[in-house]
Amino acid sequence: MYSFKNDYSEGTNPRILNALIESNLEQVDGYGEDHYTLEAAELLKQKIKLSNIDIHFLSGGTQTNLITISAFLRPHEAAIAANTGHIFTHETGSIEATGHKVISVEVNDGKLSPDHIKSALGMHTDEHMVKPKLVYISNPTEVGSIYSKTELEQLSSFCKKNNLILFMDGARLGSALCSKENDLQLSDIAKLTDAFYIGGTKNGALFGEALVICKDSLKEDFRFHMKQKGALLAKGRVLGIQFLELFKDELYFDLAKHANKMADLLRKNIESMGYKFLTYSPSNQIFPIFPNKIIEKLQEKYSFLVWSKIDEDSSSVRLVTSWATKEDAVKAFLKDLKNLTC
Amino acid sequence: MYSFKNDYSEGTNPRILNALIESNLEQVDGYGEDHYTLEAAELLKQKIKLSNIDIHFLSGGTQTNLITISAFLRPHEAAIAANTGHIFTHETGSIEATGHKVISVEVNDGKLSPDHIKSALGMHTDEHMVKPKLVYISNPTEVGSIYSKTELEQLSSFCKKNNLILFMDGARLGSALCSKENDLQLSDIAKLTDAFYIGGTKNGALFGEALVICKDSLKEDFRFHMKQKGALLAKGRVLGIQFLELFKDELYFDLAKHANKMADLLRKNIESMGYKFLTYSPSNQIFPIFPNKIIEKLQEKYSFLVWSKIDEDSSSVRLVTSWATKEDAVKAFLKDLKNLTC
Amino acid sequence: MYSFKNDYSEGTNPRILNALIESNLEQVDGYGEDHYTLEAAELLKQKIKLSNIDIHFLSGGTQTNLITISAFLRPHEAAIAANTGHIFTHETGSIEATGHKVISVEVNDGKLSPDHIKSALGMHTDEHMVKPKLVYISNPTEVGSIYSKTELEQLSSFCKKNNLILFMDGARLGSALCSKENDLQLSDIAKLTDAFYIGGTKNGALFGEALVICKDSLKEDFRFHMKQKGALLAKGRVLGIQFLELFKDELYFDLAKHANKMADLLRKNIESMGYKFLTYSPSNQIFPIFPNKIIEKLQEKYSFLVWSKIDEDSSSVRLVTSWATKEDAVKAFLKDLKNLTC
Amino acid sequence: MYSFKNDYSEGTNPRILNALIESNLEQVDGYGEDHYTLEAAELLKQKIKLSNIDIHFLSGGTQTNLITISAFLRPHEAAIAANTGHIFTHETGSIEATGHKVISVEVNDGKLSPDHIKSALGMHTDEHMVKPKLVYISNPTEVGSIYSKTELEQLSSFCKKNNLILFMDGARLGSALCSKENDLQLSDIAKLTDAFYIGGTKNGALFGEALVICKDSLKEDFRFHMKQKGALLAKGRVLGIQFLELFKDELYFDLAKHANKMADLLRKNIESMGYKFLTYSPSNQIFPIFPNKIIEKLQEKYSFLVWSKIDEDSSSVRLVTSWATKEDAVKAFLKDLKNLTC
Repeated sequence: MYSFKNDYSEGTNPRILNALIESNLEQVDGYGEDHYTLEAAELLKQKIKLSNIDIHFLSGGTQTNLITISAFLRPHEAAIAANTGHIFTHETGSIEATGHKVISVEVNDGKLSPDHIKSALGMHTDEHMVKPKLVYISNPTEVGSIYSKTELEQLSSFCKKNNLILFMDGARLGSALCSKENDLQLSDIAKLTDAFYIGGTKNGALFGEALVICKDSLKEDFRFHMKQKGALLAKGRVLGIQFLELFKDELYFDLAKHANKMADLLRKNIESMGYKFLTYSPSNQIFPIFPNKIIEKLQEKYSFLVWSKIDEDSSSVRLVTSWATKEDAVKAFLKDLKNLTC
Repeated sequence: MYSFKNDYSEGTNPRILNALIESNLEQVDGYGEDHYTLEAAELLKQKIKLSNIDIHFLSGGTQTNLITISAFLRPHEAAIAANTGHIFTHETGSIEATGHKVISVEVNDGKLSPDHIKSALGMHTDEHMVKPKLVYISNPTEVGSIYSKTELEQLSSFCKKNNLILFMDGARLGSALCSKENDLQLSDIAKLTDAFYIGGTKNGALFGEALVICKDSLKEDFRFHMKQKGALLAKGRVLGIQFLELFKDELYFDLAKHANKMADLLRKNIESMGYKFLTYSPSNQIFPIFPNKIIEKLQEKYSFLVWSKIDEDSSSVRLVTSWATKEDAVKAFLKDLKNLTC
Repeated sequence: MYSFKNDYSEGTNPRILNALIESNLEQVDGYGEDHYTLEAAELLKQKIKLSNIDIHFLSGGTQTNLITISAFLRPHEAAIAANTGHIFTHETGSIEATGHKVISVEVNDGKLSPDHIKSALGMHTDEHMVKPKLVYISNPTEVGSIYSKTELEQLSSFCKKNNLILFMDGARLGSALCSKENDLQLSDIAKLTDAFYIGGTKNGALFGEALVICKDSLKEDFRFHMKQKGALLAKGRVLGIQFLELFKDELYFDLAKHANKMADLLRKNIESMGYKFLTYSPSNQIFPIFPNKIIEKLQEKYSFLVWSKIDEDSSSVRLVTSWATKEDAVKAFLKDLKNLTC
Repeated sequence: MYSFKNDYSEGTNPRILNALIESNLEQVDGYGEDHYTLEAAELLKQKIKLSNIDIHFLSGGTQTNLITISAFLRPHEAAIAANTGHIFTHETGSIEATGHKVISVEVNDGKLSPDHIKSALGMHTDEHMVKPKLVYISNPTEVGSIYSKTELEQLSSFCKKNNLILFMDGARLGSALCSKENDLQLSDIAKLTDAFYIGGTKNGALFGEALVICKDSLKEDFRFHMKQKGALLAKGRVLGIQFLELFKDELYFDLAKHANKMADLLRKNIESMGYKFLTYSPSNQIFPIFPNKIIEKLQEKYSFLVWSKIDEDSSSVRLVTSWATKEDAVKAFLKDLKNLTC
């Protein structure tokens, strides 16, 4: 049984394990104040080409989202998210648990536009309603789409004009940045958002996300929030060492490119067999629509999520590739699909 | 510069790294539903000799404390802790951030007794005050002392009579259990408390704590709380694999014994040089009192915390040993101290 | 300028003022432990025909909703509400501020049915999502509709089967109970819900809501929650005296009947002039649709809310009547409307 | 049985009832946007002699404290209070329920000094601890003492230097301002604190506190917080009308003066009978120490709190006077005490 269920089925890239081994018995300071973590932060600043940004390393996406959003907002302020946004759907009310409403906006393709936000603002006009203050976007989105530079510029400009914080969830940012259709650089994102994070867990790390805070007024005392929410690892080095390895050369991007290449292979071939897709996705998650009978057959050899019912006879499924996805497995899947299709 | 600053200066025990390596490319389920994690939970149940307990793996002590306590309490209920208790002093108000007051009680040796709790109950009598509901103890305490079986039985009995939840923070539980003065077994603790955790981070793991929920009524839906607070790692296997390795034989206890042995060596020799200690500590943290001049000299070659001022000329320091502490370093420290003392 | 803007424009029914005057200089206990408040609670139990219920008096609707819902839920549990529900739209995220998500369900007429709840349950299936636990309904709803006995029985039965708490917001309960189309008694509501409140503020009191907790397991320590959220008035008598006066005879119902009678008068005549309504409302809030030109003219002499845009030329408005609405004012409004209509 | 138990045993000053009657049937806007409330705010600005302050009317002390403090603080910030401070002892963890720790400091006379605060700051030095940000003082304190102008100036200056918010709980501010030993004016308090409130409930109002926000950066969006916490009364007029009446002439101060006069009468005569007091209190709460036998006798005719055990045979009691305390009752009490004393 080969899994296309997600991009966190395997452990970590071997280079990261090696880096952990090599540094293992060195004595360093705790709580992310060790030299590995400091170097990793410096390295990321270079990659992002900005020095006046703050970098913090956290353990996972939900943790990063909830600490960041609760640190940025006052009690009456709310986040705006797409109705597919991870914080709205799959984080067990973690934002609400910190006291903040998530205002959801109906979208088609996982992406928010200024018009969506404008409509949310229009419905929140006085003190009987929460005050929308932060815009949460994911890139790639939860349905695989990615933001173009123009789209992000428009969002950024709208947020600035309306005094809104723009925050990008980059759990799969590697895949977005390495998509063939991407025209955004890390440095663009840092200029256009107030904060974003670079996901490690879903791109080859054992675990870990690198939060980048770009806007000065949001930086103060961030480590207090991390500690208060249980996110300051005693052996913080574990996070620093991983990001150092991922970014000391092109590893982070190489891993994402492999994941994307595997997704491209799946997409191209599935398309050529005549199947449609639920969403337009140029990243490492794709959502083809198959007859239920074929899905059942595929499930005998492959694990993946059945995503949504299309009609009585067919459903969309989610296929996810990663840095560790084997080309042989992809080819075997395609071959099996081909046979089932004929 | 050799560090006696804490027990999380190094990475992880090499056997744990090996276990991570060996399992690394296997595809398993996410979020702690993989077979490693399930096996680790089963193994712990055997070690604890109870089957009707729930085991959850979390990333660190503050995270474990805040999720456990907030999951157990209703909004108006409070925790009682010693004034030295970690949740009261060094977790950035994490319990309060979940809405609950921590009632602190002045203690001498880090340990709570039924009398302490009785006094706290006596001051909280109606709805104008919070309702004390959970008793938080650490074993060993933050000042190195440990609970005897008799003491824990008395606490347990008092809590049962007064309908209080008894929760033990076991960040350094290995060191307590392996102390020469200890008469508690894991199975005793599971019978006498409503929940406790077995600390991994400070006893050789890369990171990780194993929470044990003993009382049935506290078990329901615990994974929801973990997810909501950002504690459900996508690659949850990382925690399961570590605890499996720590407990598949005596590794966990062997590591703690080494830490204790190193502390014993320090304690015995420091004592024999005529120094006093701030607290009576039979575990891996000791608090000798040295002249400030000697402290300054020691700091040239060793790092450790200066804990508290004793008088104008002397202070207590905290020396912490771990599974990784080298006997040579301990001997060198003692030799240097001896020379400074003469 | 006469106001049909809401049902809290005037002060309080004169009989309530008299009751305050008569009791004014008596010394009584504070925080709702005075004999007036105790008598009011006993009286309500008689009116509701149940003795095993708990009654608490609070100051307003948002306060009652937030304290009740946060007292009833554990941290990971959520409330389900209609997308028109007051807690979802107009209480400034007060429920989220206590840590709980409000799951909104799209409805047509302000009312929730078992099917709506079933669909919400179907989308919340594991620990990556909040756990729906409480169903919030308003009677009358925010758009004036009311629940029939059959509808409430179906909801109640569904909630019991699915282990959900059913909570009714009765900010305007008087108007629902006195509607010509109502077939529910207070005693029915107490048997069919787990908790509900009887609104005073919008039915003649100076301020005040009477919360009724029907389900035993929800009663414990409720006063702690009231105090913690700032709802335990030092001079709690003020609430008790008001509810004693409202329920010692038929005053509460007489006031609601007058409000409904005024709404009936408006509705019947507006209908007979050929106008349509946005919603079917048999209570004291009605939502007729007028041409914008007529609305502008009416606004010269009357204040009311313009509710929603219907098309380029017409909008729905909200007309609210109360115990204090003058029949002359209603007639004048109708006459003016008639003139504008011709 | 005459009560000296507290200053909220009676209803409200008759002039306030009259004001409610006179305005009762006027239609005005809801939620504190009516002309009475606006006038009351303007009037208070005149009395305070400052125009750049914001005034909000709330229902009670706990409500005011919790909304103000939670609106002012970021999640990791804490309040410092005397260990006798109301928010630390008698508000059911309301501040913690909003997520913030209250750091208590041991004091003798209910008052905080810069040294107390300095010591609290000294123990909170990094992100492993909360960040002290707001200093909470009560004037008069919970044990009857009052702050002198010099003391408040020192506190104010210390807080400014250390970037701390200074907030004064004025639940009984009238009594402090009208104490013979007071040298503070309302305008001084507004200049020396960042926010404070003028208590109505304990000085003749039916209920109500007037919060004054002095510091510009703390003013933004305050009404959102009020609404979110259930404090925005639909009939907000009730609060405005009361404060308008209390401050349109000297009523507020006259009521406080009467309370103080009654306390002075008690204090002077109790002192002259040879009794000691637990605290030095020049306000309307006094704490004489009586033999337990005399206390028991007094309790047959008077109700009051037994405050604390002094020794086996004697205790301190709390006697509270108010605007409504009858001179005859005071004299009767003194006569009875005299007879019991002989």
